[in-house]
Amino acid sequence: MNQTLTDIDADLDADPTSEVAPHPRTRPALVAALSAPQGFGDQTLRSPRPDAIELLGGIPDPSVLPASELAEATTRVLSRPGSPALQYSRAEGLPQLREWIAAREGVAPERILITNGGFHGLSLAVQAVVERGDLVAVDNPVFPLFLRGLQLSAARTLPIPVGPQGLDVARLAEELRGGARPSALYTVPDFHNPAQSVLPEAERRELVRLAERYGFVVIADNPYRELRFSGEQVTTAPFYESDHVIEVGTFTKTLGPGLRLGWVVLPERFRDDVIALRSRADGHSSTLVQAIVAELVTGDPGLFDRVLNRARALYRDRATVLANALESAAPGAFDIEDPEGGLFLWPRLRDERIDPERLAEDASATGVEYQRGSFFPSGPGTDADRHLRLSYGDNDADRLREAAARLGRAIAAQPR
Amino acid sequence: MNQTLTDIDADLDADPTSEVAPHPRTRPALVAALSAPQGFGDQTLRSPRPDAIELLGGIPDPSVLPASELAEATTRVLSRPGSPALQYSRAEGLPQLREWIAAREGVAPERILITNGGFHGLSLAVQAVVERGDLVAVDNPVFPLFLRGLQLSAARTLPIPVGPQGLDVARLAEELRGGARPSALYTVPDFHNPAQSVLPEAERRELVRLAERYGFVVIADNPYRELRFSGEQVTTAPFYESDHVIEVGTFTKTLGPGLRLGWVVLPERFRDDVIALRSRADGHSSTLVQAIVAELVTGDPGLFDRVLNRARALYRDRATVLANALESAAPGAFDIEDPEGGLFLWPRLRDERIDPERLAEDASATGVEYQRGSFFPSGPGTDADRHLRLSYGDNDADRLREAAARLGRAIAAQPR
Repeated sequence: MNQTLTDIDADLDADPTSEVAPHPRTRPALVAALSAPQGFGDQTLRSPRPDAIELLGGIPDPSVLPASELAEATTRVLSRPGSPALQYSRAEGLPQLREWIAAREGVAPERILITNGGFHGLSLAVQAVVERGDLVAVDNPVFPLFLRGLQLSAARTLPIPVGPQGLDVARLAEELRGGARPSALYTVPDFHNPAQSVLPEAERRELVRLAERYGFVVIADNPYRELRFSGEQVTTAPFYESDHVIEVGTFTKTLGPGLRLGWVVLPERFRDDVIALRSRADGHSSTLVQAIVAELVTGDPGLFDRVLNRARALYRDRATVLANALESAAPGAFDIEDPEGGLFLWPRLRDERIDPERLAEDASATGVEYQRGSFFPSGPGTDADRHLRLSYGDNDADRLREAAARLGRAIAAQPR
Repeated sequence: MNQTLTDIDADLDADPTSEVAPHPRTRPALVAALSAPQGFGDQTLRSPRPDAIELLGGIPDPSVLPASELAEATTRVLSRPGSPALQYSRAEGLPQLREWIAAREGVAPERILITNGGFHGLSLAVQAVVERGDLVAVDNPVFPLFLRGLQLSAARTLPIPVGPQGLDVARLAEELRGGARPSALYTVPDFHNPAQSVLPEAERRELVRLAERYGFVVIADNPYRELRFSGEQVTTAPFYESDHVIEVGTFTKTLGPGLRLGWVVLPERFRDDVIALRSRADGHSSTLVQAIVAELVTGDPGLFDRVLNRARALYRDRATVLANALESAAPGAFDIEDPEGGLFLWPRLRDERIDPERLAEDASATGVEYQRGSFFPSGPGTDADRHLRLSYGDNDADRLREAAARLGRAIAAQPR
């Protein structure tokens, strides 16, 4: 027989302190495994001066984001009868956007799934591929937020060195021959974050061959690929030809992080699982944002490349300005490789007597903020801590020169 | 000593068939637990006629979504210097949007976290609260997609009846006194999906009291709350006053599902975990969409209520039209409660001789599609299978009358 609410009240009121054993509330293991930011992304490490110049993030410059063109595309999209851009759509993404990306990438449209930006693609790939507790091979040094994403699967990591030629595929092969059996490998093949390097075509093919032989999935994180401003593009064909690679792309660095729009190029065998995961989260990416970007890139077929060319020219200039300014502000202090694309410089301190941690603090005191190299190792055996990650994306030439001058003063003042 | 790529090639080529035990690729348990849609949402069940009238989803009518106002807001937002709407923002959401929602809901802005729509809020709540394998109390009948979302936590379910007065809180109390210890309870307090009912204030208070006493978290899913078109709003204050309730809100039914924008009202104790989860997925909701909606609702302070009033008037008319048309097309066939809000009618077939499954098939053949009641039970003891869930959101009065006429013909043709 059902109790009435009055009965329950009586029950509780009669003995409000009666002992009931409540549910033993503990944090679910999933969230308990998610650590607070340490190092990279830890705001508590920073106390920037009010006039600080920040070379911190891979942030595209507002001047090369097509704001007015996006506004115009929005007006066109929202004037369509029945406003389909305001309605539900499919987990896979809008067909016209998937088709445009597929044509650009040279893959079948069915393999494109739209995401809320690059990191979202990584997160879906990890959840679709990595069993809890699995071993995952990762870049060393590595984009630190990927390691934080891996906490979703409580994965163990196997660091693989990244050098001037990108991931050390031969070293990975040694590890595999030695018995390591990762379920996935994470790398940034183009304009590595933080190490600047690009993985050559032969190594891409070899990496795929190893993945197929040893049964792991390559998660190729490629946010900067379209921002090559010198040298020749290295093909992604080896990745697209294999069902052992998930390539993660995004409009973040080209049209703006605030859109939260990206995609994955997915082997068919993962498609249903990623869609199933998506349908347990937010269902699909904003129909409106997808429709705006689809209208932007298809409404004027040359526009996206014009946006890219403008951005590439800007970042090439800024990379050159920053590299030159560093050399003149602190002659001989750094080994500097000229980047061929992307948004980061990864100079190496030459003088072993300089403590890079102290330098970062002193640089902050002179008004320049950057990511210390020590935030990036995924294991031992890298000299990442001797490097600085300097972003030149969203500061103009004058500010980059001023930042270099401040850094130069901090270096000059280091004890040695 | 590092191998070169040539060495690896030689190695593989020399013995291409050599036995290596690859990683034993299996689907991660997380994704293996995600079932394909069955019943609700299973497109394979449907073979609609080309001229079918679909009363399937809780879809807002395009005529009451503020498309042109959103376009104007976008133009204003994207003309701001530096285009902040195209840049990264914080996991919590844009301050101006959080503040506006907080003021409207009467809670502190810190408790508002922006999501990609209501379902995303449910997904985050489940992951933050429910340990794998936990017991979760749920509405019976229930919004079926919530059960699919629960698969993320492989939870067991405890069905609690929902009647004309919403969730049967007294029955829940019995289960708890009997020893059931759910970690969470899921319910739709306003304009229940599918059962139309509204949970009275006293039951809301009692539910919260039980949650606090027995240590579970109420996940209150409230997408339809703003669409009340008759009767008095029931307060959400009991939910907001407790740290044992996560209330899930959304702009989906008011400004458009395609935005993918919603929020959760979160007790402080869950805040860091939800932010940590978010930072492992897509980081934050689209800055652009947030900025557009913030501009829409704050740029013209009366606009949102005007949008709501237009929508409420439309849905009130449509609910009335559909209820009346059903009664005249099939006199006496249904018990019909007039809804006070939301987008669904949940009529009950009176004649026990009518097989509702066969009726749904015959209705489809006459050109009307709806969700059969049998898709909604979360356990035994409900007569949901005798009901039909009819959405009146996105069909005009003429089409609703035609749909009712077709359904009437299907009913008339049933054997009895």
